[in-house]
Amino acid sequence: MKLTHSAIMLVGLTTLSSIASATEKTVNTPQVLPKVIFFDVNETLLDLGNVAQSVTLALDGRDDLVSSWFTTMLHYSLVSNAIGEYHHFGEIGVAALQLVAKQNGIALSQTEANQAIQAPFRDLQPHLDVIMGLKKLQASGIKLVTLTNSSDAGIESQLKNANLTQYFDDSLTVQHLQVYKPDLRVYQWALEQMQVEADEAMLIAAHAWDIAGAAKAGMQTGFIQRPGQYQFALAKKADYVAVDLIGLSEQVLTKQP
Amino acid sequence: MKLTHSAIMLVGLTTLSSIASATEKTVNTPQVLPKVIFFDVNETLLDLGNVAQSVTLALDGRDDLVSSWFTTMLHYSLVSNAIGEYHHFGEIGVAALQLVAKQNGIALSQTEANQAIQAPFRDLQPHLDVIMGLKKLQASGIKLVTLTNSSDAGIESQLKNANLTQYFDDSLTVQHLQVYKPDLRVYQWALEQMQVEADEAMLIAAHAWDIAGAAKAGMQTGFIQRPGQYQFALAKKADYVAVDLIGLSEQVLTKQP
Repeated sequence: MKLTHSAIMLVGLTTLSSIASATEKTVNTPQVLPKVIFFDVNETLLDLGNVAQSVTLALDGRDDLVSSWFTTMLHYSLVSNAIGEYHHFGEIGVAALQLVAKQNGIALSQTEANQAIQAPFRDLQPHLDVIMGLKKLQASGIKLVTLTNSSDAGIESQLKNANLTQYFDDSLTVQHLQVYKPDLRVYQWALEQMQVEADEAMLIAAHAWDIAGAAKAGMQTGFIQRPGQYQFALAKKADYVAVDLIGLSEQVLTKQP
Repeated sequence: MKLTHSAIMLVGLTTLSSIASATEKTVNTPQVLPKVIFFDVNETLLDLGNVAQSVTLALDGRDDLVSSWFTTMLHYSLVSNAIGEYHHFGEIGVAALQLVAKQNGIALSQTEANQAIQAPFRDLQPHLDVIMGLKKLQASGIKLVTLTNSSDAGIESQLKNANLTQYFDDSLTVQHLQVYKPDLRVYQWALEQMQVEADEAMLIAAHAWDIAGAAKAGMQTGFIQRPGQYQFALAKKADYVAVDLIGLSEQVLTKQP
């Protein structure tokens, strides 16, 4: 199967038909402007298109399997939590890719699996709305901090390659605790690091499971409804919801959820 | 899309091309015949074909999405662990189905999602090798116990509807602890319930993440390589591996891993 450039650009991590037309309802009204906003990075700030492209190529052009690969990676990150065996997120991504390849009868060497994941994950561009959204928030005096499942070295490369380093006051990863989000210890540790109470902080993410964890930890939450991303029916809904970071920033700064 | 009976029968939870031709290598040689064998149920003993069929119908015939739905359910079972909010496995299955439907632009009401999951999950048939395998193990005097992510009521119905109740000495579920496998507490609690040491017990499962947890808990492990099921590259390999329960039983009873 030959992949055209336009096809690859459209793959994202979900199917085309997944693009939302409506924004989900919000249910809460936070009382205070956050002092610190934590940001999920992969998909929330950075466009995973590069990874989707390389994963598609590794899986013999099967762009329909990219979403399965990503969910498998997330599942095994939490298997890692459950059994107390930490591996870097990129390693889990590689092993998840090998699993999806086997499940679909696709030959894939260890080297090919490594190449498909590790370099592309560190070379992602920000979504088009991200810089303007970050500038609005930064100008307001709120501290901005990344909080990601990527490794320490991973997030450093990611922010550098995306030219986003200068927007953040700090950069926290799960590597210190060796458990993945949404384990509540991650949010609690992040709050301690930034010396704020839970309700003085916000997490912004494009992933329902991350919003669920931060909400449970007592933080304010902002959901960016990236294409194909939806909140989870059994979890508390986010305080703020928008289709991009510009809209979300405006909601937060004007306190109009 | 019209689904033929034969197409539905072949869907399973994976694609056709996923059927394995080779058995993975084993790496360990357990020292003792187990006193108790714990069994994972869904997919390991029971054929999920009914659920795959109803999920496919709910997703407008998109049988390619069944695997995504199942992985999403597993992911959110562990999100539940991570944030300490327990919901029954069936409820998580329904919410995961709603999420996959939204992601793919498929209209699905709450009632339709419930109907697609809850009744079919309780009405599954055993894989064809299961009764003969259980009889071999039962005849050897080993205690046989189910250990499942299903609810107490769920497993009771499942075993009754599959005519398997008489093969088991006990039936344990995660409902007591309200955390899902592979959280190590589940295996440790199960060992306590059956009053055996970890190395006197075995878990048999068709899921890599379950094998990973039981191995980490110190139990012997037997992996049934059902179609589309493979072990995970970053986890310890199972002590015994076979394509069905008859072969696995023979390996265990003759101690020839």
